Amino acid sequence: MKLASLKAGRDGRLVVISRDLTRYLPAGDVAPTLQAALDNWASVYASLEALSQILDEDSESGEPFREEDCASPLPRAFQWADGSAYVNHVELVRKARKVEMPESFWTDPLMYQGGSDSFIGPRDPIPLLNDDEWGVDFEGEVAVIVDDTPMGVSREAALERVRLVMLVNDVSLRGLIPAELAKGFGFFQSKPSSAFSPCAVTPDELGSAWRDGKVQLPLLVRLNGAAFGKANAGVDMTFDFGQLIAHAAKTRPLVAGSIIGSGTVSNKLNDGPGKPVADGGVGYSCIAEIRTIEVIRDGAASTPFMRFGDRVEIEMRDGAEQSIFGRIDQMLVDAKV
Amino acid sequence: MKLASLKAGRDGRLVVISRDLTRYLPAGDVAPTLQAALDNWASVYASLEALSQILDEDSESGEPFREEDCASPLPRAFQWADGSAYVNHVELVRKARKVEMPESFWTDPLMYQGGSDSFIGPRDPIPLLNDDEWGVDFEGEVAVIVDDTPMGVSREAALERVRLVMLVNDVSLRGLIPAELAKGFGFFQSKPSSAFSPCAVTPDELGSAWRDGKVQLPLLVRLNGAAFGKANAGVDMTFDFGQLIAHAAKTRPLVAGSIIGSGTVSNKLNDGPGKPVADGGVGYSCIAEIRTIEVIRDGAASTPFMRFGDRVEIEMRDGAEQSIFGRIDQMLVDAKV
Repeated sequence: MKLASLKAGRDGRLVVISRDLTRYLPAGDVAPTLQAALDNWASVYASLEALSQILDEDSESGEPFREEDCASPLPRAFQWADGSAYVNHVELVRKARKVEMPESFWTDPLMYQGGSDSFIGPRDPIPLLNDDEWGVDFEGEVAVIVDDTPMGVSREAALERVRLVMLVNDVSLRGLIPAELAKGFGFFQSKPSSAFSPCAVTPDELGSAWRDGKVQLPLLVRLNGAAFGKANAGVDMTFDFGQLIAHAAKTRPLVAGSIIGSGTVSNKLNDGPGKPVADGGVGYSCIAEIRTIEVIRDGAASTPFMRFGDRVEIEMRDGAEQSIFGRIDQMLVDAKV
Repeated sequence: MKLASLKAGRDGRLVVISRDLTRYLPAGDVAPTLQAALDNWASVYASLEALSQILDEDSESGEPFREEDCASPLPRAFQWADGSAYVNHVELVRKARKVEMPESFWTDPLMYQGGSDSFIGPRDPIPLLNDDEWGVDFEGEVAVIVDDTPMGVSREAALERVRLVMLVNDVSLRGLIPAELAKGFGFFQSKPSSAFSPCAVTPDELGSAWRDGKVQLPLLVRLNGAAFGKANAGVDMTFDFGQLIAHAAKTRPLVAGSIIGSGTVSNKLNDGPGKPVADGGVGYSCIAEIRTIEVIRDGAASTPFMRFGDRVEIEMRDGAEQSIFGRIDQMLVDAKV
């Protein structure tokens, strides 16, 4: 089942989407919003699934679906907790910042509490006030939405709480990160509003690609129209979603609708520095990573961070080249204009 | 105007409370929940105010109000961003952790993104899984709830976005903080669910005590029935709420219902170590602070952190000794029992 929130009010309007992302049926009679559906998942699931089956069985059913009409599946959420499960990425970025990474990072998940009150739509511009010192970067990630999850949950029980899967562009301000992290309280200003894929899908939509608590597919990232990354989200994910959820729930329960992110998808470098997609490599899911590779290789970074007018696309396709979640497609724009 | 959320469903049931906290009128016809009211503040304000006036003018009006029936005013919120405006507290706690405090902390606010999906009710127990290594502490604070606030807002414009004021018990797990902060991503597991005062009140309810973006009144804290602190929230608050909101909104807008906290209220030590209330001092708003004083004075901390069965109360009174927000009154309990 694929769900989306068409833009309407503060929380959007829940719709069910056809597998090929061409049609939708309104789900307002079942639940007005995705949060409302998540609040009562057990009792609304069958009715949403029935709408999904109508779309599946009758190719004339539904209204035309346009990803441009979407807000993020949860336009505002009660929780956005983002892990850093691809420890390779953390190690590389720290290397560029000349900060050593503790050995414990391979066994104890890193996670930060993100702002969740004002997500951007997947096809909406990213409005910021500065495209210079702020060092604007995207981060391509996978995220899950969980049902109510008790404090102290095990990894295995945590995995059973996953209701939906989606993609994220976790916008990051690299220019603000070092000073902010040095203060010791974690990210705040360096993490502006994120955007999520048009659709959030139930794990069964991923078939065998949802395995071991990971999405075993390449994350396709394009920057200004050119392929930038295709790292496999199932590879080198040191902590699976079960472990990430259990980490988040160690000292408090998680309420239905909590979003848990994977962190920037990143594949390991087997033989020296990673390669850009154009050179036959899997590339990168954020600019910071290629800049790190450049520093390691050339002594200095040459790929600039995003400037106003730059465009990033993030997507994932199944075996038949069908987009699973729809495409995040955003341009960085000057909020002052 | 004083508002509260009686326990009902996930978001409570909005009620208007009499000034003396003895009676309430249901506000469901105006807005079902406090979040719904904040989503449409401009259009619901007059109707809520009218209910408040009925309670004021007719002492027979309304139903008996019991603080025990309250959830936190926002039982779950889209944002909880907690500052550390009493820099004195930060300096003291760092001293105890033997970590130096940068000079910039006096000019650049510290703020962390807190979990906001599962707040505890003001009279509910604090259920945790460990009362030993976790080092359970309370933190008495003031918080404001803002209306929609644009990115890049000025301090002055930010202050005009304040809709409601309340108190917080920002539960903190001191035993987990050093290792978690050392990881560099800020608090997560070390900040379990917080609790807020029974009532959230409009700034005008505070009269002249709401001045310069601060609440100029003592915060009364009791531990196991004994006075523990009465630090004045208007004294030594290095950053006022306007500055804290502007800090939170530097790189993203804040959505209506976002909660911004002051950090642990703490007054400066004018002549050497601070004094417990029993010794004529203003005392402390958290255990960590008295422990720091003990370390400075005696070489070792003697006041233990909270154990299961310990009780903390947090309250603020006006000139006539009337409780303004109602009382946070919580016992630490074993979640496993």
